[in-house]
Amino acid sequence: MAGPLTGVKVIDVTTNISGPTLTMVLADLGAEIIKIERPDVGDDARGMGPFIEGEGVYFLHINRNKQSIVIDLKQDEGKEIVYDLVKNADIFVENFRLNKAEKMGLGFNRLKEVNSALIYCSLSAYGQEGPLSDRPGYDAIAQADAGIIGINGAEGAEIARVPVSILDQGSAMWGVVGILSAMLHKEKTGEGQHVTTSLYETGVFWTGYHMLSYLATGKEPKKNGAGHTAFAPYGAFLASDTHLMIGISNNSLFKRLCSVLGKDEWLDDPRYSSNQKRVENQSELKTAIENILYAKIAGEWVELLAKSGVPSSKVKKISEVVEDEQTKATNMWSDLPHAKIENLKLPRLPFELSQSPTEMTQGPPLLGANTVNILSTLGYSKNQIQQLKQNGIIQAAEKQISSH
Amino acid sequence: MAGPLTGVKVIDVTTNISGPTLTMVLADLGAEIIKIERPDVGDDARGMGPFIEGEGVYFLHINRNKQSIVIDLKQDEGKEIVYDLVKNADIFVENFRLNKAEKMGLGFNRLKEVNSALIYCSLSAYGQEGPLSDRPGYDAIAQADAGIIGINGAEGAEIARVPVSILDQGSAMWGVVGILSAMLHKEKTGEGQHVTTSLYETGVFWTGYHMLSYLATGKEPKKNGAGHTAFAPYGAFLASDTHLMIGISNNSLFKRLCSVLGKDEWLDDPRYSSNQKRVENQSELKTAIENILYAKIAGEWVELLAKSGVPSSKVKKISEVVEDEQTKATNMWSDLPHAKIENLKLPRLPFELSQSPTEMTQGPPLLGANTVNILSTLGYSKNQIQQLKQNGIIQAAEKQISSH
Repeated sequence: MAGPLTGVKVIDVTTNISGPTLTMVLADLGAEIIKIERPDVGDDARGMGPFIEGEGVYFLHINRNKQSIVIDLKQDEGKEIVYDLVKNADIFVENFRLNKAEKMGLGFNRLKEVNSALIYCSLSAYGQEGPLSDRPGYDAIAQADAGIIGINGAEGAEIARVPVSILDQGSAMWGVVGILSAMLHKEKTGEGQHVTTSLYETGVFWTGYHMLSYLATGKEPKKNGAGHTAFAPYGAFLASDTHLMIGISNNSLFKRLCSVLGKDEWLDDPRYSSNQKRVENQSELKTAIENILYAKIAGEWVELLAKSGVPSSKVKKISEVVEDEQTKATNMWSDLPHAKIENLKLPRLPFELSQSPTEMTQGPPLLGANTVNILSTLGYSKNQIQQLKQNGIIQAAEKQISSH
Repeated sequence: MAGPLTGVKVIDVTTNISGPTLTMVLADLGAEIIKIERPDVGDDARGMGPFIEGEGVYFLHINRNKQSIVIDLKQDEGKEIVYDLVKNADIFVENFRLNKAEKMGLGFNRLKEVNSALIYCSLSAYGQEGPLSDRPGYDAIAQADAGIIGINGAEGAEIARVPVSILDQGSAMWGVVGILSAMLHKEKTGEGQHVTTSLYETGVFWTGYHMLSYLATGKEPKKNGAGHTAFAPYGAFLASDTHLMIGISNNSLFKRLCSVLGKDEWLDDPRYSSNQKRVENQSELKTAIENILYAKIAGEWVELLAKSGVPSSKVKKISEVVEDEQTKATNMWSDLPHAKIENLKLPRLPFELSQSPTEMTQGPPLLGANTVNILSTLGYSKNQIQQLKQNGIIQAAEKQISSH
């Protein structure tokens, strides 16, 4: 069984987090990714620590299943190689600053001349238009601009970004959705197209519910900690050792919670008789719940609540998640071969296909590991390749890898 | 120009947030969504406030472009209608508790008998296997289980969930990626398949970088506020009125920052000479920066920094984002017709396709708005429909809408 994108060829000039995440998804789906990197340093993410055997973990995370070719795109001969690659490709992905690809001769319209059916994806910081469109993209900065940081944390809490890259990786996911949609359009019409997305648009869309709430009520959405504006009891509650999360969204779950806590009498308490009442009296209710939770450790409560079908969980550490039985049972980790790292393990994509499964076959490439092989396949002679090397147009890693 | 999924038929038995978000994406891409809802109350999200003209905003956000049919799935005659619908469909999507679809006679294997090429997507809470797999799914609970809440906020901060539904909506996005991939596989092979994803797998994947950092260093990832473990100065800094975010990831950006702040001498200061030094001395550096920022309001600094190419932003309120010129310039909002709400505005998906654009044509349906029309199209006679109504198998809204 082969991945659904087997046979699809992607030319990837992206760096850092958003673009490489996008092409990683295509790679795991079976596409062949030719990752073009700049001389000497390559993708900036290679230098983002911490490091395993000199390789940055962020780079390692999102560049498996790719081939690396080093080309100097500032030189015309370098661009010519890209045009050659694009001729035989299905998809081109870039995450330069807005309009930089055009200035480099690698814009959508230029590459369409080379390959009329090309699907071309631009992943930018703030979108294709507007007063912020020429700004560079950083996940945390765009989180602030999109209103996400303003509502993150408990009431009065110090400013904090969402600690996972929901704009870098979120925009990558939307880019994938756009590209796959464009592929379906191409199956029907033969036509390529320009797919665009950005960190900012992704951020605004994440806050959709809050924006609509604001429009419905005129009230400014506020920091709400672990709680939920619409439900109670909902949030983090302290047991004898640490906090657990409890989420009660209706009367039936509240009844089960009362039963586990030995407080069936709360069902007749007018302060707690409906979700609305519980929201009104939530701080009293929280104290009452914590007075009971104090008798046991969080882990015990989570088991008891789970048995009664009450949604709850411990607030787990990252180390606990890595080792968790649920993480193991869902096979989230795989071993991957790597030129320098012996036991490289990476998490798989979070979905599965029964008939055309995603795959992780090869660890992230060393810089320029596939330069010679990719050019040979394109028809460049040994002499030409030698010449390009001498002229500083390309670079190759010492140990060259043949394409799989 | 029609959306890339024009002509694709989706049978949707999902409720709440994750599943309906998934089918919303398919809907905006042009697919026809037949949303099956239970009698009387329909999708639970209809009851989640705040409300506009009696309609819950969360429901409104993620159910545009869909048709609603009310069927009692507990009754055999109700299931027969679903089988009839599935016969003519391409995709089926469910987000029941694990194995509930099977028990209802709506599992993958059963529906494959009805339609052998069906693409069937299951969106669960914790995945298809493992000790937690039978637990119900709630975004905040799964965020805690996946380690995200444990690292959200500033050091020592009160426990807070990520304030946007990155697991509900994130798993929906992965489900879409899986379904579109399965459609490409079907184009080649004619074969349908089972696509599975979950909140938990999505959460574990979001923390990929932190998990790998932990594996690389053995150090437990901690709450880090607005900052970045690898870079300084990076995070929230107080100006005279409020905070702004500044993100400096290399020496060249630091040089520009120093110039804007009038502190070129910092470039020669051994405490700040490299990113590593700046990380070591970041609290001193922060104080020094804030002493200067205090002279102006945050908005002025953001403009000055932007002119010099230094990444920065205000920490915006949701109301500011709704009204922001950038939000307007990127056309994030569209007007949609709705049976009861006059000026319904919803945000579009955060990507664009130049040749087969996504579209929002119709606001979310009233409960059972399309029941009669859908059954007529299936070939049910007026008498049969009347009988099904009388027997409580189906319900129809008073005002019936023809399919578009």
